[in-house]
Amino acid sequence: MRFLSDNAASVHPRVWDAMRAADIGDTPYDGDALSQQLDEAFGALFGREVAVLWVATGTAANCLALAGMVPPHGGVVCHREAHIEMDEAGAPGFYLHGAKLMLAEGEGAKLDPAAIRAVIDPIRDDVHQVQPHAISITQASEYGRAYRPDEITAIAALANERSLGLHVDGARFANAVAFLCCTPANAVGPAQALSFGCVKNGAMNAEAIVFFAPELADVVRYRRKRAGHLQSKGRFLAAQLLAMLEGDLWLENARAANAAAQAIVGAASDRLMHPVEANEVFMRLTPAERETLRQQGYEFYDWGADAARFVASWDSDQDAARTLGRAIANL
Amino acid sequence: MRFLSDNAASVHPRVWDAMRAADIGDTPYDGDALSQQLDEAFGALFGREVAVLWVATGTAANCLALAGMVPPHGGVVCHREAHIEMDEAGAPGFYLHGAKLMLAEGEGAKLDPAAIRAVIDPIRDDVHQVQPHAISITQASEYGRAYRPDEITAIAALANERSLGLHVDGARFANAVAFLCCTPANAVGPAQALSFGCVKNGAMNAEAIVFFAPELADVVRYRRKRAGHLQSKGRFLAAQLLAMLEGDLWLENARAANAAAQAIVGAASDRLMHPVEANEVFMRLTPAERETLRQQGYEFYDWGADAARFVASWDSDQDAARTLGRAIANL
Amino acid sequence: MRFLSDNAASVHPRVWDAMRAADIGDTPYDGDALSQQLDEAFGALFGREVAVLWVATGTAANCLALAGMVPPHGGVVCHREAHIEMDEAGAPGFYLHGAKLMLAEGEGAKLDPAAIRAVIDPIRDDVHQVQPHAISITQASEYGRAYRPDEITAIAALANERSLGLHVDGARFANAVAFLCCTPANAVGPAQALSFGCVKNGAMNAEAIVFFAPELADVVRYRRKRAGHLQSKGRFLAAQLLAMLEGDLWLENARAANAAAQAIVGAASDRLMHPVEANEVFMRLTPAERETLRQQGYEFYDWGADAARFVASWDSDQDAARTLGRAIANL
Amino acid sequence: MRFLSDNAASVHPRVWDAMRAADIGDTPYDGDALSQQLDEAFGALFGREVAVLWVATGTAANCLALAGMVPPHGGVVCHREAHIEMDEAGAPGFYLHGAKLMLAEGEGAKLDPAAIRAVIDPIRDDVHQVQPHAISITQASEYGRAYRPDEITAIAALANERSLGLHVDGARFANAVAFLCCTPANAVGPAQALSFGCVKNGAMNAEAIVFFAPELADVVRYRRKRAGHLQSKGRFLAAQLLAMLEGDLWLENARAANAAAQAIVGAASDRLMHPVEANEVFMRLTPAERETLRQQGYEFYDWGADAARFVASWDSDQDAARTLGRAIANL
Repeated sequence: MRFLSDNAASVHPRVWDAMRAADIGDTPYDGDALSQQLDEAFGALFGREVAVLWVATGTAANCLALAGMVPPHGGVVCHREAHIEMDEAGAPGFYLHGAKLMLAEGEGAKLDPAAIRAVIDPIRDDVHQVQPHAISITQASEYGRAYRPDEITAIAALANERSLGLHVDGARFANAVAFLCCTPANAVGPAQALSFGCVKNGAMNAEAIVFFAPELADVVRYRRKRAGHLQSKGRFLAAQLLAMLEGDLWLENARAANAAAQAIVGAASDRLMHPVEANEVFMRLTPAERETLRQQGYEFYDWGADAARFVASWDSDQDAARTLGRAIANL
Repeated sequence: MRFLSDNAASVHPRVWDAMRAADIGDTPYDGDALSQQLDEAFGALFGREVAVLWVATGTAANCLALAGMVPPHGGVVCHREAHIEMDEAGAPGFYLHGAKLMLAEGEGAKLDPAAIRAVIDPIRDDVHQVQPHAISITQASEYGRAYRPDEITAIAALANERSLGLHVDGARFANAVAFLCCTPANAVGPAQALSFGCVKNGAMNAEAIVFFAPELADVVRYRRKRAGHLQSKGRFLAAQLLAMLEGDLWLENARAANAAAQAIVGAASDRLMHPVEANEVFMRLTPAERETLRQQGYEFYDWGADAARFVASWDSDQDAARTLGRAIANL
Repeated sequence: MRFLSDNAASVHPRVWDAMRAADIGDTPYDGDALSQQLDEAFGALFGREVAVLWVATGTAANCLALAGMVPPHGGVVCHREAHIEMDEAGAPGFYLHGAKLMLAEGEGAKLDPAAIRAVIDPIRDDVHQVQPHAISITQASEYGRAYRPDEITAIAALANERSLGLHVDGARFANAVAFLCCTPANAVGPAQALSFGCVKNGAMNAEAIVFFAPELADVVRYRRKRAGHLQSKGRFLAAQLLAMLEGDLWLENARAANAAAQAIVGAASDRLMHPVEANEVFMRLTPAERETLRQQGYEFYDWGADAARFVASWDSDQDAARTLGRAIANL
Repeated sequence: MRFLSDNAASVHPRVWDAMRAADIGDTPYDGDALSQQLDEAFGALFGREVAVLWVATGTAANCLALAGMVPPHGGVVCHREAHIEMDEAGAPGFYLHGAKLMLAEGEGAKLDPAAIRAVIDPIRDDVHQVQPHAISITQASEYGRAYRPDEITAIAALANERSLGLHVDGARFANAVAFLCCTPANAVGPAQALSFGCVKNGAMNAEAIVFFAPELADVVRYRRKRAGHLQSKGRFLAAQLLAMLEGDLWLENARAANAAAQAIVGAASDRLMHPVEANEVFMRLTPAERETLRQQGYEFYDWGADAARFVASWDSDQDAARTLGRAIANL
């Protein structure tokens, strides 16, 4: 019973079906009929004009989105524990040609205007210091915390005031929307670009970069090809994205993952390190307690010396999650 | 009846089967059981120790392979019409951090030692000029020409003499091997790295970078992640590659594509601009002749003002190819 | 008697004087009184508003100027023998983050609209091919040829039509102006940026980047610092530039160099490979003839197997140049 | 009476003399007689074989030194307030092609093994996280603190254990040596490269990169040219460096600057924020106190709300420094 991560979960049957249906001759790259539908499909979801590019990974999505906003001599404010800082092997440095990540603090890996100002206000407005050009936040955050719409609005207002772009890493955007019970538009706020994650949520290898400032996409199209991310059979990526949107599969899957996470918490919410607002559970558990759980067949990651991380996915066995929850309560 | 390109062909049923079979929980990235089999499977194919990395596109394969050989201040000798020069949107400049492509001449988009020397011999050995660090050739070439084993050996000898790396872009390596009727090892020669193409040959979105100098892979692993090309469900890429090797599907598919290309040539070999040694056919055809063919339902690209390019793929209809061949002969 | 190059010539006494006079306490970097005078001084020279940055080398000047015009995924059209292509160690690839030089042909290392169109017209307007963003020409060219004002106007018209930036490498701009007997403004035409060379013309280590589109300078100021080219005692560079402008020393020096070059030609103009329109002389001379001249104490570079390059500088001994000219005529 | 910074101080007369003496025809770039003496001169100073390159700025020196040690996908551990992090406009990101600065803590802007381990030990040894490749320390530090020889030895031992390069930013190396009263060799320890600063210490615009691992210089020579830092009249930079070494002018100047700093401290050592171990004085001074001093004609920078920074230079007026010291004591 695996609660290691959602990043290797299985592929949803409806995604498989859509991919099989896409196995017909069509124009290569993103000239196919499915890729051509993306702008409209995501536009309908967000209720405004968007330009959408598919890519195979979240790292590529994040970095290409930022590449449209940040010059090589610029900087991006993000949380100290943001995925782009911690787990992307320096990809932002590569894609942004040496631009700098500017690390802000914040509880639960979330930023707020004060934390951002604490980073950017001390920067002298001269050529000796890297100037910020964008802010990147993660919805839900690396600790599974969801930004409320008014929190994003406040960050966006600061971004606007300082002429900074705003990017949202939405590797688990669906989980945040499912938790917030708000519209997708409210969950992303007035950002310029969103990495709309699907791989952790039932797709195989397709993520959407959603540009709310469509002119950014015109530059990023070149950058995507230049990064080797323009697949010739792009119809199979488009098919995955459209299948995720169809009938709100993306939300349905996220709700399942979130429910399993809540089941793991069960009666042991006193052990939580962070409120569970998505599909990740961070719990204080001693080494001995973790060992006990592992002997019962549960797989999960240690989180430092005295805690564990459990991640539920769209295909998590809800019974197993409940049983795990009870096992934790019984420790 | 499409003979536009092989890059958007359908996915082979055995590839689909392998992908479906891979849809089980496993370690993310390249820690899964399938990815772990790649070194051995390709090692058996080439009869020597190799290290293999999967990526989604040929552009990524070529550029990551070269990234292991060429420092930012170095250069790569390639043909003036090589794919890395003409059709990868400057990806080598991106992946190699500004290193330079040094363009050589050669009939049929093939290089030989004299053409390479014509580029590198005039380079002064001083810090004012970019020094070459690698050679990249394409097997089969952009005009569908296959290097004979002794031709590669001669290029490799020059590379070795000048301490240059040797990379082979094998987007259509299978077609070359099928044509040459030699071992894969002989078709790649003593190169350090091969982009072993599968996407044009029945796979969906998986290519193999085969490192014959396995230590290069240790650096490139970091570069792959940094480029956003380390997919979390990498097992689906590994599955594609293994399916292509299984029972020599890669060769079987290439033979089918090559046969279709020969059928297109049919009795009109006097029209050929290049000998057909893979699955591409470049033919002199007037605008009127091309129009005639198109009215008969054939799709293909113009190649300049007075010629056309036909590309056959593994799934080309052999009858359609023969009929096209006859239609050309009857023009 | 050295006619090897103008790049190691001595420093003009008035430049020395200006540098000594600058050795007073002042604001660091470019905040000093001298640096603050540059925009006005060059603005007066060119008769329009300009923004001027000093740097220590021509390579830095060229690459920083282009960095304001060309994104990392773009391209720069230049002559196949342009200094940025041949002799800057790949600096454009570094400063432009992998952007591509697109090589055009042209007699005497000069470009014209037809040659530029021959490079850019075949580029497909799609994401697979690098798109041109700027043109760079050299005034005077690498073979000492000067663009006439109408030639630059024609190139600029093409640049404007295709929305390309226009940069002029003026390492020997003074020599071109001296030859053309036109205004500096006419010798640079409607370019966006000029590398105004001084090092080869009597300065020690200061070149001016003159931005005729002053907004470009705002970005390049960051790039200059980021490249380590913002010297803290910048007043010594500004002093050199102002000394060169003072009393038209730059023109006076260039006239001296050009005159020495003409003296070298003397009666042997039939040996010339290129008309002498600046301070460089390329002459057909057999190995035996070159040996004869060297035995008489003349130093110069071989230019291929059967020619020689002589370069005169502002401090060349005019008598020595005349004597050399006679020696050549007597061969 | 300026105590703003040492970076705009005047040029020492012996440096001027050496530069004037260098104004003779010689080989361009670093082929001149003076540049050729650098390895030997610095080798004698440090008592071992070194390879030395001149550049015009400390930023270029630091970044080129690191470029020899760190691949684009690697990282450099430095102090959170290191000059390369705070005041070089992202130059390390440019020169290292996106490599990452990894920020460590430490009193007085100094690192120690524990602080370095706190940064590098948590880095997982996998491809998702940037791996450290070098450590950079500043001697004397950004707060004017000198590393004792055993402190550097301890850092070097850690670097060696983890296979990391060690670079020393010695913008004020002379001041540290003058303070420590040790040999230059002991003050730099077993580092691979030292940025040996001269600009702040009496030179005009020449710094030395001293490679104790001479093979690194072979790569950096290409990088220097590629960065536009290979001046054609390099003899004027070499002349400055040699003049600084001649008769230990570098030490004499540093001692003068250090003495002036001590004079500023005077009787007010209780106000110090950091022990004064070089030529920088950081003192707690209220806004009113600072205003008082400024009305007496002293120029210096505020350091946050309640402190000031005074920097003495080689040419500081010792009487003025003493008077300032008394003025502070009298506040």
